[in-house]
Amino acid sequence: MARIVQKFGGTSVGDLARIRNVALRVKAEIDRGNEVAVVVSAMSGVTNQLVDYCTQMAPLHDAREYDAIVATGEQVTSGLLAIALQELGVQARSWAGWQIPIITDDAHSRARIAEIRGAEIIRRMAEGQVAVVAGFQGLGPDNRVTTLGRGGSDTTAVALAAALKADRCDIYTDVDGVYTTDPRIVKSARKLDKITYEEMLEMASLGAKVLQTRSVEMAMKHRVRVQVLSSFSDAPGTLVCDEDEIVEKELVSGIAYSRDEAKVTLVAVSDQPGIAAGIFSPLADANINVDMIVQNTSHDGTTDLTFTCGRADLERALKVVKDNMKIPFKTINTDKSVVKVSVIGVGMRSHAGVAQTMFKALADKGINIQVISTSEIKVSVLIAEEYTELALRALHTAYGLDAS
Amino acid sequence: MARIVQKFGGTSVGDLARIRNVALRVKAEIDRGNEVAVVVSAMSGVTNQLVDYCTQMAPLHDAREYDAIVATGEQVTSGLLAIALQELGVQARSWAGWQIPIITDDAHSRARIAEIRGAEIIRRMAEGQVAVVAGFQGLGPDNRVTTLGRGGSDTTAVALAAALKADRCDIYTDVDGVYTTDPRIVKSARKLDKITYEEMLEMASLGAKVLQTRSVEMAMKHRVRVQVLSSFSDAPGTLVCDEDEIVEKELVSGIAYSRDEAKVTLVAVSDQPGIAAGIFSPLADANINVDMIVQNTSHDGTTDLTFTCGRADLERALKVVKDNMKIPFKTINTDKSVVKVSVIGVGMRSHAGVAQTMFKALADKGINIQVISTSEIKVSVLIAEEYTELALRALHTAYGLDAS
Repeated sequence: MARIVQKFGGTSVGDLARIRNVALRVKAEIDRGNEVAVVVSAMSGVTNQLVDYCTQMAPLHDAREYDAIVATGEQVTSGLLAIALQELGVQARSWAGWQIPIITDDAHSRARIAEIRGAEIIRRMAEGQVAVVAGFQGLGPDNRVTTLGRGGSDTTAVALAAALKADRCDIYTDVDGVYTTDPRIVKSARKLDKITYEEMLEMASLGAKVLQTRSVEMAMKHRVRVQVLSSFSDAPGTLVCDEDEIVEKELVSGIAYSRDEAKVTLVAVSDQPGIAAGIFSPLADANINVDMIVQNTSHDGTTDLTFTCGRADLERALKVVKDNMKIPFKTINTDKSVVKVSVIGVGMRSHAGVAQTMFKALADKGINIQVISTSEIKVSVLIAEEYTELALRALHTAYGLDAS
Repeated sequence: MARIVQKFGGTSVGDLARIRNVALRVKAEIDRGNEVAVVVSAMSGVTNQLVDYCTQMAPLHDAREYDAIVATGEQVTSGLLAIALQELGVQARSWAGWQIPIITDDAHSRARIAEIRGAEIIRRMAEGQVAVVAGFQGLGPDNRVTTLGRGGSDTTAVALAAALKADRCDIYTDVDGVYTTDPRIVKSARKLDKITYEEMLEMASLGAKVLQTRSVEMAMKHRVRVQVLSSFSDAPGTLVCDEDEIVEKELVSGIAYSRDEAKVTLVAVSDQPGIAAGIFSPLADANINVDMIVQNTSHDGTTDLTFTCGRADLERALKVVKDNMKIPFKTINTDKSVVKVSVIGVGMRSHAGVAQTMFKALADKGINIQVISTSEIKVSVLIAEEYTELALRALHTAYGLDAS
């Protein structure tokens, strides 16, 4: 017997027929003798409709009222799934966030979970009752409903799994797992059986849109085993787990990419102490996330300084730099047609030469590397966006990831 | 300064523009220096959609899940109205039933309010904050959401007015008050300035669809002054209040009618003791509401017995009588083309001749009276349905109710 938390997103519960289908998947776990709690999103389209109402009523609206309104979407789904389960002869009851309760802070519309009081649900699961939990929401101070922001239902599922000490958290989605790279671009991409939290975190934050970064962080912190799998097929998914659980570690697990990058270069900056502080402190104050940074060696008393930020932040970043930069420079160049490609793998901690393989594979295809950054388990490079597909395929082959 | 509870039904909050219009009406009360709590229904169509979901998922579904699902409609409206009020510079916050809380029993989908803990709302109203309360719902045992059934938002409003010791409960609807009779039928019908609880109760239960019977009963019990008025005009409405508040009492306040009647006649029943018990005990056991009863004087050892019930119950009533009637009778006749017309007024307690005026007015028009029943403040007759309009106009004139 195992204790399982299942999570179904908006597409998986998009209409009544799909909710019935979800009920069958829940029943299958019950029939295997497991204890089950289910976390559901709103039916697809519902949240957007409710958000639209708020925005139309007032472009700048009270986040507390927004939360009270938007959280109803998940409450409807949880009730409907409970009814569908009862129709199949499975004991079930719906739980809104405030009923459990899932205690959060007061950061309305992007609240963080502080505590889940799961004792009552554990008691009922032991009696065979399925807990159908409305995702994305909690109970804040002053007895008010809060929502958790983007990807909130994933976070609810992982946090619930931690609170219930579940053996596994199954995240059902519209893809059937985590791939070595984007299978729409690289035909030979393979689904991974297992991936470590650290790797998944890099994959998630680098643009592989399978799991929200926050839920992976939480899974890592509480050591929750998370399985990503498709609600539309019966294929096994990808297990996100502790490194110890992966017997044969690959050197490189995947190649990720992110098009959400913009490059900014300050040309011919006077080479004197305080350049970096003069640029990046104001950017940090303006809450602009700077990702990669490179400063060339000085020549003729000046240096070029390049950094990247999110494309959406580019205009704001330029203004901040122009308004605050005290040290003289010649001009600023920007480039939005860049992509960040990253090679990720916990294996590279203990192996040299991983970066070298990357540089050579790109050079062989004539792809120029503009900026490089590395962490313990990844190497990222910035290249011209037009080379994205070529680079992904070359790297996938170079690291031996192609399906045989 | 007065403390006012306002209630707006589904049509009044049917879309965002109408919710904005409601916000203006609330603000007007605040601007007059009053303390205000508002009760809202779901936007029109929303409740039906949610009920449909439940019914499609399972024709016989768990009433507890039904309640959790359907109650979300009012929660959305209350949040949107709070936002609309804030846009007008009025402090406001939404309250779901569980947040106040409005404590109910566990009769899911038709729960009764046991207690409203209004202290926190009273404190905030004193600070100028409008309480926007989701109608139709409460908190039952086991921390679950309940709904109050048909007309539940009216009941919420009146119960809240009682709990907050409000000076008045204004029920905004799509008619502008209570009329002496149906103005669609009698052009000279007049809007009443005031009507007593007792009269309103008779009007409500006899088919004048302005206020639900349950909310009038509750208003009478707690002496809540209820005003019925239109959310689409600025005309004053009708005040439902204590008899003491009405200085000049009319003999007759109104003429009501109900088409929801069916007549059943047992022909040539053997005239022996126990006839009534033999018929009406089984009907009561079957939960069939019998309204009017008449038994003719016996001749040749048999008698005819006639009663009325709701049209929807007719088939069931016939079966119950046939299966249970031990005393011999010749046959059963039924008639669905009847209407009950009633003359209502607290003044008739102290005046004779009210019934006589009714009988004469109908006789003058050649209308045959089939059954008569009376209570302290009303006289009802059953007539052929085709005479409805003629009877209403004749009685309206006979009692001097026509607008001058």
